[in-house]
Amino acid sequence: MTDDLTARLDALEERLQRAEDTLAITQLIASYGPLVDAGRADEVADLWTEDGEYHVEGWQMRSRADVRAMVLSDAHQRLITGGSAHFLGPAWVEVDGDQARAVCESTLVLAHGERWVTARAGVHRFTLVRDGDRWRITHRVTHLLDGSQEARDLLAL
Amino acid sequence: MTDDLTARLDALEERLQRAEDTLAITQLIASYGPLVDAGRADEVADLWTEDGEYHVEGWQMRSRADVRAMVLSDAHQRLITGGSAHFLGPAWVEVDGDQARAVCESTLVLAHGERWVTARAGVHRFTLVRDGDRWRITHRVTHLLDGSQEARDLLAL
Amino acid sequence: MTDDLTARLDALEERLQRAEDTLAITQLIASYGPLVDAGRADEVADLWTEDGEYHVEGWQMRSRADVRAMVLSDAHQRLITGGSAHFLGPAWVEVDGDQARAVCESTLVLAHGERWVTARAGVHRFTLVRDGDRWRITHRVTHLLDGSQEARDLLAL
Repeated sequence: MTDDLTARLDALEERLQRAEDTLAITQLIASYGPLVDAGRADEVADLWTEDGEYHVEGWQMRSRADVRAMVLSDAHQRLITGGSAHFLGPAWVEVDGDQARAVCESTLVLAHGERWVTARAGVHRFTLVRDGDRWRITHRVTHLLDGSQEARDLLAL
Repeated sequence: MTDDLTARLDALEERLQRAEDTLAITQLIASYGPLVDAGRADEVADLWTEDGEYHVEGWQMRSRADVRAMVLSDAHQRLITGGSAHFLGPAWVEVDGDQARAVCESTLVLAHGERWVTARAGVHRFTLVRDGDRWRITHRVTHLLDGSQEARDLLAL
Repeated sequence: MTDDLTARLDALEERLQRAEDTLAITQLIASYGPLVDAGRADEVADLWTEDGEYHVEGWQMRSRADVRAMVLSDAHQRLITGGSAHFLGPAWVEVDGDQARAVCESTLVLAHGERWVTARAGVHRFTLVRDGDRWRITHRVTHLLDGSQEARDLLAL
């Protein structure tokens, strides 16, 4: 009987871990937009591993320090002090043990006097790794949803 | 004592199942936009049951094959090769045993030269069914958020 | 051996509760946009505690009744009968026992003849409390993402 209970506990722990992982990754990605619009450079950078990468149209970041520098850059500071929403949709996640992949779409909405404009729509593809009791991004590619095959290849997990 | 443990395990399994179901359905709906913008006709169609329905302004799909044909249609291919984001928000889900309902809102953002335009905003109402170890859509209605009573009736679960 | 199983059950129950709480709060926030665009005044108001607050640019609501009155107001009814999407992104949630905080961004998309316009982009910061077997909002602030320090301070949990 105890063996039976132990087997059920084992199964429950494994299932719960998977649910927690999916939830943790959707939450991590849900935090990106608010943090990057707030300009919290350290907290944004901390979403990546030390040598994590972020490739976004002509900007090749190859470390947490590079991500931090992007948030502090004049280009990014102009966006967020002018009024910006890096508006990411819900992430679609696939967990495989201690690794995971996720995809989401986004718009970038900017204040423009009294109006708001959609400056771009994009796809984001994340590779993540379990790092102790949390998840971190090891690789992220962002591409304009410009109809190119390259952009469309990033969309499917 | 063992009875006690068994009762707690029963309760845990039931609660975890409910959480997993909600999570699975939010994930299914989160995958729709990326898959349909990628043009993955088979994978989009596979979100529906064999005889699942999808009704979207003047387009009545009554099977998985119909959904697949929609993705492969000239109209849809023009959208996605021109640059499109079928940008769905987080789904609000209600699970009831082996059936579920879900609602979300969306925008459709299209590339238009150097600019991006919001071509429409819509509501999506899903009915889903447990199909083995996953969920599938049996019925989906999409309606423009045009202020009509019909659209607004679709918004509340 | 039974002690061992009990300890594992205790841990599982605590972990599952945390996952359920996060999920419940993301679901609550996912329901706001659909409900408020549907004009369901009672159901929107019911997301708040009896004396819950909602502060949104020049509108200070200090009770569930105030929230209900906002939904029924001429200003809100004009928005939703004209065609509106209060389009909230996925919530980023932090649960601490029986209290929680959450942040998300949003756009407000309005029908404008044949076109759709983004009337604003905003940040929403929620404080929530466990109320029996569900969660309710005790305090919410919404601010335009206008680049001000005040708006940006609301973005980080």
